[in-house]
Amino acid sequence: MEKKASEIRQWVRKNRGKAVTLLQRLVQEKSVSGKESSAQAIVIEVCRELGLEIDIWEPESKVLKGNENFVSTRENFFDSPNVVARWKGVGGGRSLILNGHIDVVPEGERIQWDCDPFEGKIENGKVYGRGTTDMKGGNVAMLIALEALQATGVQLKGDVVFQSVIEEESGGAGTLAAILRGYKADAVLIPEPTNMKIFPKQQGSMWFRLKVKGKSAHGGTRYEGVSAIEKSISVIDRLRILEEDRNKRVKDPLYAKIPIPLPINLGKIEGGNWPSSVPDLVTLEGRIGVGPEETIDEVQEEMKQVLSRLKETDSWFAEHPVDLEWYGARWIPGGIEEEHPFVQTIKKNYKEVTQKEAILEASPWGTDGGLFTSIGKIPTVVFGPGSTEVAHHPNEYISIENMLDCAEIIALTLMDWCEKAK
Amino acid sequence: MEKKASEIRQWVRKNRGKAVTLLQRLVQEKSVSGKESSAQAIVIEVCRELGLEIDIWEPESKVLKGNENFVSTRENFFDSPNVVARWKGVGGGRSLILNGHIDVVPEGERIQWDCDPFEGKIENGKVYGRGTTDMKGGNVAMLIALEALQATGVQLKGDVVFQSVIEEESGGAGTLAAILRGYKADAVLIPEPTNMKIFPKQQGSMWFRLKVKGKSAHGGTRYEGVSAIEKSISVIDRLRILEEDRNKRVKDPLYAKIPIPLPINLGKIEGGNWPSSVPDLVTLEGRIGVGPEETIDEVQEEMKQVLSRLKETDSWFAEHPVDLEWYGARWIPGGIEEEHPFVQTIKKNYKEVTQKEAILEASPWGTDGGLFTSIGKIPTVVFGPGSTEVAHHPNEYISIENMLDCAEIIALTLMDWCEKAK
Repeated sequence: MEKKASEIRQWVRKNRGKAVTLLQRLVQEKSVSGKESSAQAIVIEVCRELGLEIDIWEPESKVLKGNENFVSTRENFFDSPNVVARWKGVGGGRSLILNGHIDVVPEGERIQWDCDPFEGKIENGKVYGRGTTDMKGGNVAMLIALEALQATGVQLKGDVVFQSVIEEESGGAGTLAAILRGYKADAVLIPEPTNMKIFPKQQGSMWFRLKVKGKSAHGGTRYEGVSAIEKSISVIDRLRILEEDRNKRVKDPLYAKIPIPLPINLGKIEGGNWPSSVPDLVTLEGRIGVGPEETIDEVQEEMKQVLSRLKETDSWFAEHPVDLEWYGARWIPGGIEEEHPFVQTIKKNYKEVTQKEAILEASPWGTDGGLFTSIGKIPTVVFGPGSTEVAHHPNEYISIENMLDCAEIIALTLMDWCEKAK
Repeated sequence: MEKKASEIRQWVRKNRGKAVTLLQRLVQEKSVSGKESSAQAIVIEVCRELGLEIDIWEPESKVLKGNENFVSTRENFFDSPNVVARWKGVGGGRSLILNGHIDVVPEGERIQWDCDPFEGKIENGKVYGRGTTDMKGGNVAMLIALEALQATGVQLKGDVVFQSVIEEESGGAGTLAAILRGYKADAVLIPEPTNMKIFPKQQGSMWFRLKVKGKSAHGGTRYEGVSAIEKSISVIDRLRILEEDRNKRVKDPLYAKIPIPLPINLGKIEGGNWPSSVPDLVTLEGRIGVGPEETIDEVQEEMKQVLSRLKETDSWFAEHPVDLEWYGARWIPGGIEEEHPFVQTIKKNYKEVTQKEAILEASPWGTDGGLFTSIGKIPTVVFGPGSTEVAHHPNEYISIENMLDCAEIIALTLMDWCEKAK
């Protein structure tokens, strides 16, 4: 086994250029929600070369809408195929799903980037670009792991089910579609950007939309109106207190080193339509984290209560309550115990490859892991090469070394978990 | 003269229905910026019936751009005609410009209206709809005043120059175009909604745009980013203090009863593009009042200084200063002394018609009056029937009685100022 590990290491290092080129090609396809197909075409090409059994389909809204966990801002998924590719084992071993999402968030303000976000520039051992860390680098690590095993003559007993899914950034419609299509396994690995930490527990999260009302007036006599922008500041302040209160309750040691374990992020604000009118409506959109031991319902109820108490300090809100809507994306929380054998397998192989002890934490964001644990009832671990700090940022990058280390760790984990037949 | 005043009163009251129908027709044409022509067509029809000399033209950008007071968000004024109609006097009297704008601000959120904003509903002696107060009611008062004089057989010595201009709500390109086309007179009356108060002085105002910067991050690790929404709150707070400081300096007794003489209004906010990303940019748009004794330059400099001092309490602003842009509309301040004979004429006729003492104040908003006093060097008074409280509001309305009282006052003022020939 150690000899095989060493062969794999050599193969992976020798094929560094191949891995980087694959990542660059994936980054060059701007696979934001609704535009995933050209990046998926590259994934399909690689899976074909690996001789996998490939299943390509556009998730069907009518199938998804029947499931209570379905959330999406999209009406349909035309031109947004899911790709699942099976490497059939010889039988008798445990199976593993390797799951990664192909969609990326928008690049934000172009001016904040020092390079073209869709070029894939290489500098100082890093590849830069939108999606490098979140999570095309992880996807490359999985594909390189499979190729390394094949190239070094490994055959597995259990099946490996590689999934390149759409819509993770909007709430997991792609992974839900794969689960509903019947894909199962004995465990799931998702190489989201954990900075090589092992996340046995995943925070859930969901999007909300707040409508804060004001009363319109001429800007010159603004004292006759009520500014929805000023009222929004009260709402934002109150959400900050809610965030503090919620985080004081977090005792899980897996969150000990995270500054704000369950963040409330306000991502979008929009209100008013004329510089010299008092704005009568401001819309705020954001996301709130849901702890691994919390339920979606509990957290929704808590925010509802907090907003309803705004009227206690400002009577405006008694007659003009803030509208709260849960819309768009939602990632349900999930997790398994640290002692679970799959967690232990990854931990062991992390040490084998890096010569360091693995760090276990809980994720600060939602992933498709919640769907696998809650709906699919499959133990899931999130562990990947990207760096959390740069996900969704300008100048997003991934360390090539981390990506290759991760590929090795995945290859070794596959040999352990699915069992090496030869 | 008193007999004539009484005849005019009778004619105006008998033609109440005609005045209301004209206002309704004008309200039914949604003459927001760029869509004024169908409302102007009604104005032209009335001016033809009155036998006035009519001048209709689309202001030319290339002419306007040569003037330092030109501001507009528009590239051109195609399909947005100005209308000027002269009632030639027999000679020997002072002339008067009657100026009103035909453009209206957008209706805002439809849901906040209890009626169709473009229907012209009548209820309890009021006509409801966008533009009733600001300022189609004032325009009707002027046209009815002219008709009343003609119908009662009055001929004036001086010319009356009726102007129905575009673009007042965006900074006065219509009135500037009329001034540059050579229209002059010995005084100007603008029946903007002063709630029947006489405004010898007009506040100026101008629009600004602020860009507040943040640093993008994944919402789940929002502590790694800097929220442009949170930074905007600091900016908004600072502008509130600036507003307080500026208003403490206002000593003019004409402003004594106005809660905030020189308001800073934030009318629009927009930032961020993804609920679960930390927003890296928020854009704020607003207007700031310019006191009758202030200059545009002084006020711009003061805001610039205040924004540059944000870094003293938050080092973020040292490296990421707020961008300040003066864009779109600008109304220059202006005014004449309370003792001016034109002010006194209106004051006298206000008492004649209403049996009450006139109230003199300074306007809380900019009008085209600043252009007339500063560029045209013509003494200007703003006095009109609309109610300031409802301008730019949902459920905007005008009192029909006020509109008719104003028509009478204008008619009597024309007889005094331009001198009755017969």
